Amino acid sequence: MAVEQTAAPEVMQLIDRVRSGDVRALARAISLVENDAPLAADVLAACFPHTGRALRIGVTGSPGAGKSTIVDKLARHYRAKDVSVGVIAVDPTSPFTGGAILGDRIRMQENLSDPGFYVRSMATRGSLGGLARTTADVASVIEASGKDVILIETVGVGQDEIDIVRLSDVTIVVLVPGMGDDVQSLKAGIMEIADLFVVNKADREGADRVEKEVRAMQSLATSHGSWVPPVVKTIASTGEGIDRLTETIEQMKQWLDVDGRLEARRKVYWRERITEMMRHALMSQVREHGLSDAELEAHAARVAGKEENPYRLVPELVARVFKS
Amino acid sequence: MAVEQTAAPEVMQLIDRVRSGDVRALARAISLVENDAPLAADVLAACFPHTGRALRIGVTGSPGAGKSTIVDKLARHYRAKDVSVGVIAVDPTSPFTGGAILGDRIRMQENLSDPGFYVRSMATRGSLGGLARTTADVASVIEASGKDVILIETVGVGQDEIDIVRLSDVTIVVLVPGMGDDVQSLKAGIMEIADLFVVNKADREGADRVEKEVRAMQSLATSHGSWVPPVVKTIASTGEGIDRLTETIEQMKQWLDVDGRLEARRKVYWRERITEMMRHALMSQVREHGLSDAELEAHAARVAGKEENPYRLVPELVARVFKS
Repeated sequence: MAVEQTAAPEVMQLIDRVRSGDVRALARAISLVENDAPLAADVLAACFPHTGRALRIGVTGSPGAGKSTIVDKLARHYRAKDVSVGVIAVDPTSPFTGGAILGDRIRMQENLSDPGFYVRSMATRGSLGGLARTTADVASVIEASGKDVILIETVGVGQDEIDIVRLSDVTIVVLVPGMGDDVQSLKAGIMEIADLFVVNKADREGADRVEKEVRAMQSLATSHGSWVPPVVKTIASTGEGIDRLTETIEQMKQWLDVDGRLEARRKVYWRERITEMMRHALMSQVREHGLSDAELEAHAARVAGKEENPYRLVPELVARVFKS
Repeated sequence: MAVEQTAAPEVMQLIDRVRSGDVRALARAISLVENDAPLAADVLAACFPHTGRALRIGVTGSPGAGKSTIVDKLARHYRAKDVSVGVIAVDPTSPFTGGAILGDRIRMQENLSDPGFYVRSMATRGSLGGLARTTADVASVIEASGKDVILIETVGVGQDEIDIVRLSDVTIVVLVPGMGDDVQSLKAGIMEIADLFVVNKADREGADRVEKEVRAMQSLATSHGSWVPPVVKTIASTGEGIDRLTETIEQMKQWLDVDGRLEARRKVYWRERITEMMRHALMSQVREHGLSDAELEAHAARVAGKEENPYRLVPELVARVFKS
């Protein structure tokens, strides 16, 4: 199968505009993808040939660890070197926090209003797993617009966030001293996905202890092959340590560039993504041909009322989908 | 469709033993379900008619908030009243934390080794969404063994945990003062799922502030109808406030028992569960008939190498699954 494909003419036009640097076209293409619009698959298929070159950097860590500031400083660093940057800030839709972070991002956009920089906030939407998929797709669209570096930042540090950032080429986990957030209590899975640890607010008491704890755990943790995740101390608010951080990212990039490591990593990435895309596509088929919302509702009521056994129902429904 | 169904004779026998209080049979039935064994569907179908009567109580909150102690005290409270109890402790498989928590549980089991009490630790396994499904299924098996109350406790407070505990009849969110874990920074979604807040370690400074913050947020949060989630202060280590907590759970239960509220809640529950079960069943079909692991591997490599466009590949694969 060829990579280049014909898509709907309006999509080809839209992607041409995206590639020529039209910010409005980019925003529209992203919205189509975010909303899972009928044209979304065409948009993504048309973007795909123009992806794969950018470095995707995922940044996660506890709320308040300073992730936004780090992402901000990284973006400024790359822009100063004329490296174009896309930022995706994945915000939960909580009425309590979403707005504030989006606000910060809009300010950041204003400060850096240059054609080599683009920022997009994304809200948690849809069901389980949906956000990681959508984030990856939005990253592809932004990458197709010609960005060299894509920074993907999450708000929290839960399973969702892990699933989002682990789809990056370089995953940064931001820790901070004295937040009751001992390394031991970190969400399981976080140690395993980190390519690089940042101990931010390193002027605070306890920074050395956090670093020591991370290093102690590394001796237990799953191996990244010959890459031992470094620990970089920063004070992001003043910019201290950011140079060291970007150098370390560059080292990781160089490590990925030999022995087909980047391609091996992306192969793992695509194995998961294809599986997830198939799951999504199959469920769309079910909704279209197999089980309407009204039917689902009726079955749920019967199961809740103990009139129907769900463990017998589901195999029957699946058989029906395949027959239709 | 009738609820009672014939299953494989060995499964019928196993479930008879489960229902008669045979702990080994219960452990074996749970393992079949946890491992998604070929007999798992039969086990669950045979258990289903014996479920629906128990009260499922989900307990979530930040690591270190004292969830295990609260669950322990609740279990002892119910046992003292001759109410039988099952506990599911959902642990992440992290090599760093899993073992310790499992150890606690084993001790708890020893202390309370009576036929009216059963505890099971579960590890994170499989991919996204799998854990919530398996936890719900394991809860059904334990319920079929005749337990009156099922306590489901998570380790952390991420999306996974939200998905697990929201499938309960009563969801308790445990907060604690002064853990840098301000109510504002709580994972989005937590406020919305709580039926009941516990401020544990209430003798610590800041307990009143946490309570005040929760109440302030409640005025903004999604409504639970006429149920306003109460805030209960506890010092679980000494047992203080546990009586108040069990009374509040009882009030919630009484509220659920009128106007078909419990059934409405379980209908929502089953709508999600049936969808998730179908998704799981479809993907099993795909693995069996559509796309072998080796093929998936090969496609992933071609996509990573830009030789194949995943957004064209997936619709073709889906079409093939349906044709076969």
